[in-house]
Amino acid sequence: METLRWSGTTLTLLDQRLLPTEVVYRVYDSVEGVHDAIRDMVVRGAPAIGVAAAYGMVLAARGLISDPNCFFTTLAEKARQLKQARPTAVNLSWAVDRMLKLACAYERKILDEGDSLSSLLSGLEQEAIRIHKEDRDTNRAIGENILTLLKPGDGVLTHCNAGVLATTAYGTATAALYLALERDIPLNIYVDETRPRQQGSRLTAFELQKAGADITLICDNMAAMVMSQGKIQACITGCDRVAANGDTANKIGTLNVAILARHF
Amino acid sequence: METLRWSGTTLTLLDQRLLPTEVVYRVYDSVEGVHDAIRDMVVRGAPAIGVAAAYGMVLAARGLISDPNCFFTTLAEKARQLKQARPTAVNLSWAVDRMLKLACAYERKILDEGDSLSSLLSGLEQEAIRIHKEDRDTNRAIGENILTLLKPGDGVLTHCNAGVLATTAYGTATAALYLALERDIPLNIYVDETRPRQQGSRLTAFELQKAGADITLICDNMAAMVMSQGKIQACITGCDRVAANGDTANKIGTLNVAILARHF
Repeated sequence: METLRWSGTTLTLLDQRLLPTEVVYRVYDSVEGVHDAIRDMVVRGAPAIGVAAAYGMVLAARGLISDPNCFFTTLAEKARQLKQARPTAVNLSWAVDRMLKLACAYERKILDEGDSLSSLLSGLEQEAIRIHKEDRDTNRAIGENILTLLKPGDGVLTHCNAGVLATTAYGTATAALYLALERDIPLNIYVDETRPRQQGSRLTAFELQKAGADITLICDNMAAMVMSQGKIQACITGCDRVAANGDTANKIGTLNVAILARHF
Repeated sequence: METLRWSGTTLTLLDQRLLPTEVVYRVYDSVEGVHDAIRDMVVRGAPAIGVAAAYGMVLAARGLISDPNCFFTTLAEKARQLKQARPTAVNLSWAVDRMLKLACAYERKILDEGDSLSSLLSGLEQEAIRIHKEDRDTNRAIGENILTLLKPGDGVLTHCNAGVLATTAYGTATAALYLALERDIPLNIYVDETRPRQQGSRLTAFELQKAGADITLICDNMAAMVMSQGKIQACITGCDRVAANGDTANKIGTLNVAILARHF
């Protein structure tokens, strides 16, 4: 299951609004298209949005090269607009700002040393590919760390979607489940629905099944029951934000899971 | 909102499978029809099933009167079949057995004293009407008792449906909310969806709104959040069974609500 793909000239996104009934990929060749895809939730999940936005900035710069007047001013304006596509997704502004910072560094070289805009384009593409690759590496590292907390045969409850579909590979918290699959470590995976938008039943259950995992889908309100039967040893949820002290903010229902897990 | 109605010759049931989008009443004139209505969940909720079954026994006896050979043997067989329509609903077998016990008492009178079968029919109908009326009285008493635990302005979370639609009037646990409405006692009512069959969003939210209550529908997984905000002072759920020591068994999700309520 691939969330996004960069061809060198276009960005292809899996339309997550149609999952799990339809698997449709959409191709984008402009920053405006990427903006709308993020706003309309074609792509969702903070890490995936960040990578999509980085490629969006590459497309923005390419679109401006034919008319290089006010190149940097216009690029900054495109960046500002792109960041507004989903104000709550922290990876979006992080990735766009990182791309913009690189463009600034080139601006000086172009002005001072007569460097060309095409070297900037190439630099931006390399940076976007780097952000893309870092997502994979970070997620794998998250997975390795979480895996040290799990034993073969453990029952794991997931809430919302922190998997491949929220990222570009492995997922964040869910990465541990994919690593366990790769290494034939048996786990009993319980996926909750995650009402009201069903990210659990629509996305997490879908992507884990596609990967060959044997999962049990439960209603959100069944968590206490399966925990009371001793079937759950760990809970995996995403987190929208982490504070410096370790506090996290996340999707509705995470507090339910946390309190129930503490009780049992 | 009327769950069932006895005309003297037929039983009319609200088809609860179509709620909340359609309000359709179905008319039954045979015990076989009542059996299927219970089996197919046209009527649900243990108290409502019990009352429907009592009238079903009246219809069974009426159907046998034209051919009084083996009247009591056949009635006992009809009773056995009716009880199988929903083996888990304890009120079903309770009501059918109560009707059958009355029939047995008449059997002796008919054999010993030459009493007529028509006096039996009349006795059975009176007994069914008595069961019907007792449901209303019992529910009102439950409501009065629960109401002593609530203060004006309290927030109340409901789980599943223990309201009018599960009974023939007032509901069981939910009766307190109807009494509060009658007496203009303000309450903030939060109705959870009750996945997977949505008895909360389909039935409880529907019947309370019909009665003029101002309710807030929440996903099951939002309970901890609204409790953490201090919005809930009491939780109301039905219970399928109560043990002599006060333990209860009920719909999936009740344990979630109980543990979260204890936490806050």
